[in-house]
Amino acid sequence: VDSHVHIESSMMSPAGFAAAVLPRGTTTVVVDPHEIGNVLGLRGVRYMLDATAGLPLRVFVQAPSCVPAVPDLETAGAAFGAAEVAEMLSWERVVGIAEVMDYVGVLEGEERMTGVLDAAHEADTVISGHCPGLRGRELAAYLVAGPRSDHEVENHQELLEKLRLGMTVEVRDSSFSENVRATAWAVEKLSGVPPNLVACTDDVYPTDLRRHGHLDHLIRSMVAAGIPPLDAVRTATLHGANRHRLHNLGTLAPGRWGDVLLVESLEEFFVDEVFVGGRLVARRGSLVDALPRASVPLEEENTVHLTPPPRPEDFVLRSSRDRQEERLRVMVLEPDGTRGLTTLTFPVREGRVDISAHPGVCLVAVLERHGKGGRRSLVPVRGLKLKQGAVATTVAHDSHNLLVVGRDPEEMVVAARELAQVAGGVCCAAGGEVVASLPLPIAGLMSPLPLEELAPRMDALNEVLHDLGMDYREPLSPILGLALPVIPHYGITDRGLVDVDRQVVVPVRAG
Amino acid sequence: VDSHVHIESSMMSPAGFAAAVLPRGTTTVVVDPHEIGNVLGLRGVRYMLDATAGLPLRVFVQAPSCVPAVPDLETAGAAFGAAEVAEMLSWERVVGIAEVMDYVGVLEGEERMTGVLDAAHEADTVISGHCPGLRGRELAAYLVAGPRSDHEVENHQELLEKLRLGMTVEVRDSSFSENVRATAWAVEKLSGVPPNLVACTDDVYPTDLRRHGHLDHLIRSMVAAGIPPLDAVRTATLHGANRHRLHNLGTLAPGRWGDVLLVESLEEFFVDEVFVGGRLVARRGSLVDALPRASVPLEEENTVHLTPPPRPEDFVLRSSRDRQEERLRVMVLEPDGTRGLTTLTFPVREGRVDISAHPGVCLVAVLERHGKGGRRSLVPVRGLKLKQGAVATTVAHDSHNLLVVGRDPEEMVVAARELAQVAGGVCCAAGGEVVASLPLPIAGLMSPLPLEELAPRMDALNEVLHDLGMDYREPLSPILGLALPVIPHYGITDRGLVDVDRQVVVPVRAG
Repeated sequence: VDSHVHIESSMMSPAGFAAAVLPRGTTTVVVDPHEIGNVLGLRGVRYMLDATAGLPLRVFVQAPSCVPAVPDLETAGAAFGAAEVAEMLSWERVVGIAEVMDYVGVLEGEERMTGVLDAAHEADTVISGHCPGLRGRELAAYLVAGPRSDHEVENHQELLEKLRLGMTVEVRDSSFSENVRATAWAVEKLSGVPPNLVACTDDVYPTDLRRHGHLDHLIRSMVAAGIPPLDAVRTATLHGANRHRLHNLGTLAPGRWGDVLLVESLEEFFVDEVFVGGRLVARRGSLVDALPRASVPLEEENTVHLTPPPRPEDFVLRSSRDRQEERLRVMVLEPDGTRGLTTLTFPVREGRVDISAHPGVCLVAVLERHGKGGRRSLVPVRGLKLKQGAVATTVAHDSHNLLVVGRDPEEMVVAARELAQVAGGVCCAAGGEVVASLPLPIAGLMSPLPLEELAPRMDALNEVLHDLGMDYREPLSPILGLALPVIPHYGITDRGLVDVDRQVVVPVRAG
Repeated sequence: VDSHVHIESSMMSPAGFAAAVLPRGTTTVVVDPHEIGNVLGLRGVRYMLDATAGLPLRVFVQAPSCVPAVPDLETAGAAFGAAEVAEMLSWERVVGIAEVMDYVGVLEGEERMTGVLDAAHEADTVISGHCPGLRGRELAAYLVAGPRSDHEVENHQELLEKLRLGMTVEVRDSSFSENVRATAWAVEKLSGVPPNLVACTDDVYPTDLRRHGHLDHLIRSMVAAGIPPLDAVRTATLHGANRHRLHNLGTLAPGRWGDVLLVESLEEFFVDEVFVGGRLVARRGSLVDALPRASVPLEEENTVHLTPPPRPEDFVLRSSRDRQEERLRVMVLEPDGTRGLTTLTFPVREGRVDISAHPGVCLVAVLERHGKGGRRSLVPVRGLKLKQGAVATTVAHDSHNLLVVGRDPEEMVVAARELAQVAGGVCCAAGGEVVASLPLPIAGLMSPLPLEELAPRMDALNEVLHDLGMDYREPLSPILGLALPVIPHYGITDRGLVDVDRQVVVPVRAG
């Protein structure tokens, strides 16, 4: 039982995701369709249910609680309030409220979060949480408001405190971060795995899924960190089932649903055979039968609405013709992933800011793509390491507008137009043409390709990004998170440069 | 959290029960109002809810599943089928289906039990079980049908098997039986207390409640049997709350309901202070404030309907005037509590069987008292040890008709008429007058008296029974169970002598 997962992070359709994780031994997932919710609202959440009906993977959904992440600082495709959440909770297979990320809103009694939590209490449902760094009285206040779980922890002590307060801690080893070692440390302090420890994968890229696996990989990570194998398995079975009130799962016993894994060794946890509802569905890493294909109309829809089409001037910082130079605020990507700010002076030529004077600086554009007014922003960024070419993506957390990175407007236009053409995804342009492309036509987030075809394409794209100068392990990661207005201390949305701490848009021009 | 309790067994009103158990540290009870359900049907169950509204004791109710215990072999005041169960499940504070005792009906797919279980599945609610001696394939079949808990076990191995099959085992130390030692043995085999072990008191007489306590006594029993104190507490808190899906109970943490006990020592577990919802309700064995008194009309109602009033001839076994003797089937109460059968020859005088020839034989009469036809039966019984006088009771599991035991019809009439007079209860007659009386005017099962007054009256009644020859520790117990048509191998209902194994009524006349 995966207690918290965003299928969209796998970049596969729900059916493709199911085909990828079932042979790894994941038989039940509790899904937060937060990404597609930001793009398509209730239709997006509905899609996750429709596209998983009849699959052998048991898919339960939590109603996304924070769509959009920060209402006034970005333009998402939809907004969920109490009414939308109440409606989702009335749907079959919707089993709770997904990670309540806006903990500041919760603590301040902000209207949207209060309404969402009231709807959850009214339905007497599970409320999942997300509150990195929250401790002591503030954490207690958050718990009183309703959320009772978390996977975000900044350090070992915080994880232990959360367990001790009866919170469900979701042990995680995702493509972005892990809390497995902190968990192992806390488990030792508690002299054993408590019943409020469950397992989640949260976000796993297709590349990592193919290389490392899914919940099976998480169990191996836990065992490697010193958690006894049987206890590691319990977090991903009984504990998760209990947390989500799935009373027929998590125990191998008469009268329960017969989901069973056969493994050679609990320590190594390489899954040999997978049974769902008593039926063999996968053996030695492969499905026994192809999954049934549901026809879901939304999969044929182009959700990338760009009017007018991207133009070179979208990627040019203008100044006045009579200025020689311009002092601009520049977002700085630090090696630890936080985002700071500096001010640099750029030469101005014919009314256009010339960024070439600072070789470490790129431009980041965000183009609203949901047909909601078409705002477009442009902000200089240092630290991304892209030396030439351009990258465009419609996967841009959490509003998933079109985000384009580059140093040259012509290259940026090529990349952006390619995505309008293929209905979304990620692509690279260099030398005036598209050199790598990962089309994600389902909501601009997901591909219909199976893992075996998709993962190599993402590898290829990362390789191109390496060649263009981005020497990260996974160069896409910092790009896909640039638009998040909740990571300290800055972000870039279609509204412009967001000061996360003050929750305001600040002008790029510093002078 | 007491996971399974019949308030009626305390012989106190729900408010009296609450006043008695709160100072002992019981703050939540999951009640099976099975006894009053048999007397008054849905009105009786409704009464349990109405009479506990606003009390600091948290009272949740499970819908009784087997009213009456055996439909065709006794006359109860009501019968519950799928429709009644579904209705109860729609009421607030009704949190499941109470012990499904008719496991034979379940295994045979009998219509009533199938309907009741379907109603429970439809409501996705907790289904509690009761299946003494069931093992292996039959136990698996019972689990598949829905029930998932039990407190009835015939031996250690059975208890261990039930825990291993994921059943919730309710550890119990009631006035009638205990499984604490079997539990301690199983816990050792499992190397620890599993999460599916919860605590219940089931049936506790006022006398035992006063002498030994309630859940506090059970925790002391568990600790004495070798279960670690913290684990013993967990069964009666977290585990019970989880089992009954009471997600705000069982954990001392922000956002949960603040039910807290202060004890000097976890081992001795004498409760010093009791907080409910954060408010101090009891200290050093006494309530801080008197409980609010709800006015519940049903408490003023006489539910003992006997038309015509009991007559001497109800207690005379007739024969024909021309017979000299009669061979009769005689139920035999064995020292271990089972009930066998023998055949004895009795002299007949003037058409009346004379039982005085067999000093160890009493007569047991059951008079239907719900206004449902007024059947009356009379059966000779050996082994009750009552040498003189008569005992009458409207507490006669499970249908709670009027049951009278005696050797002399005149004494039996006196006892029976007394109960018609006081609206039910238990009383003793000797020498032509009532010598001890425990009026239970609420449904013929419960008294409005507080524990401090009720328990001494029951002690006095037991003492009289001792004097009349019944040298049991608690002489009332064998009498109150005589009418149960589910204890091997015989019982006595208003229909007559019931062969429990064959589930038929057999005639008293053997010849």
